Amino acid sequence: MNKLLEIGLVGAILGLSLLPAAQAADPKPEDVAQYRQSVYTIIGWNFKPIGAMVKGEVPFDAAAVARHAQYVEMMSKAAPEGFAKGSGPDAVKKTEAKPEIWTKASEFDTKMKDFQQEAAKLSEVAKGGDEKAIKAQFGKTAETCKACHKEFRKD
Amino acid sequence: MNKLLEIGLVGAILGLSLLPAAQAADPKPEDVAQYRQSVYTIIGWNFKPIGAMVKGEVPFDAAAVARHAQYVEMMSKAAPEGFAKGSGPDAVKKTEAKPEIWTKASEFDTKMKDFQQEAAKLSEVAKGGDEKAIKAQFGKTAETCKACHKEFRKD
Repeated sequence: MNKLLEIGLVGAILGLSLLPAAQAADPKPEDVAQYRQSVYTIIGWNFKPIGAMVKGEVPFDAAAVARHAQYVEMMSKAAPEGFAKGSGPDAVKKTEAKPEIWTKASEFDTKMKDFQQEAAKLSEVAKGGDEKAIKAQFGKTAETCKACHKEFRKD
Repeated sequence: MNKLLEIGLVGAILGLSLLPAAQAADPKPEDVAQYRQSVYTIIGWNFKPIGAMVKGEVPFDAAAVARHAQYVEMMSKAAPEGFAKGSGPDAVKKTEAKPEIWTKASEFDTKMKDFQQEAAKLSEVAKGGDEKAIKAQFGKTAETCKACHKEFRKD
């Protein structure tokens, strides 16, 4: 199979990632929370170096931005699985997730989609390598992080 | 831009993922360990449901297998960053990483590459949807996990 097509198919599969994944059994609340926290750890790990470049703290590296942005995008698609019902603070001790994630599910869902959308755009813009455009889109993406954390994450 | 080509480019960027990523500053040992543990949490989260399907514990779902396998592959490419020098048990309390990861770096590197290679094959085979082939490749991938854990992870 043509390599690019092959990789394209891989990407196409990823496009399905908003669908719920089949699990052997309902995972335990602690496992869901651990997964969720892991997803956000990886988002932060990749988002921060883009920020450092955008702020001029480290030299701009277009390839690195593109790679990091791609991981942020992929993890944004992996995030919803981490918010299964019953994995909130009632069931899990160590979590910053607020109960409103589940009581205001529709609003949370909108904020999640905002993040996914801007992260996908960041990844797209990053491929172009235009530093100014990346900076602007980084800001927009960061806004979606803040908007969601403000309402749905404990300080 | 053609959508498939676009996604293909995204995949091509991911192909660069063995290169070290630019970081704002050297991350703290604890942050590296947290990242590393997060990567393996996400690998487990996605690998286990494939295992459950392969073992017949839950109905086989080719699309789910393909998606999970893709995340395992991507995370296998993200894993090496999590083993930066100085992030071992000397510096980090809560880690199962053995010092041999760094003292036998070449051997560890080989085992990491074995895992990445089999995970990539699993992802490839999963796209085909052939249950028997997936089962066989799942086994081969699991072997690379075990081989590395045996030598480089504390029980």
